[in-house]
Amino acid sequence: MRVLAFLDGTLADPDAAHLRVDDLGVLRGDGIFETVLVVDGRPRELGPHLDRLARSAAMLDLPEPDGAAWERLARRVIDRWSGPAEMALKLVCTRGREGDPTAAPTAFALGMEIDPAVIRARAEGVAAVTLDRGIDPGLAERAPWLLLGAKALSYAVNMAALREAARRGAADVIFTASDGSVLEGPTSTVVVARGRTLYTPPPTIGILPGTTQAAVFRAAERAGWTTKLEPLRVEDLHGADGVFLASSVRKVTRVHTLDGTPLPDSTEVHAELADLYETLYS
Amino acid sequence: MRVLAFLDGTLADPDAAHLRVDDLGVLRGDGIFETVLVVDGRPRELGPHLDRLARSAAMLDLPEPDGAAWERLARRVIDRWSGPAEMALKLVCTRGREGDPTAAPTAFALGMEIDPAVIRARAEGVAAVTLDRGIDPGLAERAPWLLLGAKALSYAVNMAALREAARRGAADVIFTASDGSVLEGPTSTVVVARGRTLYTPPPTIGILPGTTQAAVFRAAERAGWTTKLEPLRVEDLHGADGVFLASSVRKVTRVHTLDGTPLPDSTEVHAELADLYETLYS
Repeated sequence: MRVLAFLDGTLADPDAAHLRVDDLGVLRGDGIFETVLVVDGRPRELGPHLDRLARSAAMLDLPEPDGAAWERLARRVIDRWSGPAEMALKLVCTRGREGDPTAAPTAFALGMEIDPAVIRARAEGVAAVTLDRGIDPGLAERAPWLLLGAKALSYAVNMAALREAARRGAADVIFTASDGSVLEGPTSTVVVARGRTLYTPPPTIGILPGTTQAAVFRAAERAGWTTKLEPLRVEDLHGADGVFLASSVRKVTRVHTLDGTPLPDSTEVHAELADLYETLYS
Repeated sequence: MRVLAFLDGTLADPDAAHLRVDDLGVLRGDGIFETVLVVDGRPRELGPHLDRLARSAAMLDLPEPDGAAWERLARRVIDRWSGPAEMALKLVCTRGREGDPTAAPTAFALGMEIDPAVIRARAEGVAAVTLDRGIDPGLAERAPWLLLGAKALSYAVNMAALREAARRGAADVIFTASDGSVLEGPTSTVVVARGRTLYTPPPTIGILPGTTQAAVFRAAERAGWTTKLEPLRVEDLHGADGVFLASSVRKVTRVHTLDGTPLPDSTEVHAELADLYETLYS
């Protein structure tokens, strides 16, 4: 099931055509997006998602999103949803039509079912591979035109990395920088547990600030964990008590195998973190 | 004026909506494209463009394009064109609809007018700035999942670089690698003249093989020039007899100013190369 609405509030048939071929979202991957998890009609972390949408818009020189309008739009799609209890709600905004600098952005929200493989992986964990992202940790601050840390629609590389993972018999990817630093997954944030401390790399190294990672950190802090934004190396992953990929649709998914090597069993710490995360919304 | 046709031969209204919002071309910038220059109804370098489309398809694990069908499609749009003598013909192929691995690609050709600023720049030249692309020259071969050298629809960074150039008072960009090597423009190939030799960086360093650059090299060789695929450094640009950006719609456009510094006058060598290029099609 899919539910579609445009930012002006119009509900529309998701199986019908709505975009012109010269929309810059298509011709140039030029736009921004967010994916929000909705459970039982309640969107999770909508505020942080809209904050990040605004941050991406600023990085791409797009007009500042009207947060209230996007919230109404989210509500509109949620209200129409009659599918499974969990929905992935995509918020998408493109630069609009090519050749028209005054073009209004194309802005819509699309409610979608979550891939069953993603839901299964929350319980079973995933094998992941590390793949070189080819950037150095100082690049994001030095070269903002590379849009590192913006959630732009130009995700062809992220998708290609996931296909490379599949070729290597894995389901997900952890990108690394040229100096061996851990970056992020193609559509997730890396979280590492060591003792009662959670780590994630700082967004300044050119990665997306994670909405789900931030939620997990919030929940863990309330339960007495320490949390740190700190550079991580691939060696740190192999020696950790748990390596996780956090994202809206994944929630906290455990990495059980990295580059073909089984990681230490993290089922218990995973269960604890998954529970803590859920307490935020119960 | 715009003329649109789909790969099955259907002509369509370019002002109407034709794409679903969940096309992966929109949601993920996941697809490939080419831009072909058509002059007086004759497409230039169509064969090399279709070869490059096939190369991009292979890099993105997309089905191999049917060259004959794309040629017919190009012809169909050209035959309908009643605009200016010159047309930019975009060939676009996306991965099709999200969530359906068997989805047929979305494939179309769109004839468009060329931006008057681009046409003016062919005569007047442009100011360009160098911008760090953040990659090292060995990366493309080491990490094919980064799609360096594929002409994917994910061009948000290329567009952001052009906006950064505008902020710096320039019209175009020459990307550089982390070691100072010259890469390419966001939508063009860098060509340097020194004496009677033309240089361009080798595609193996992670750039697109240029169709117009190859045509210019062919024409120049016939006229007795030497041509070389060779790594270039930014210093080489400042000391050259001519620095050019080559692309279908630009043809050979002279860079008269680099990072705010005027380059040696290259109007004569530009005139010669521009003439040589035109002889290929006369």
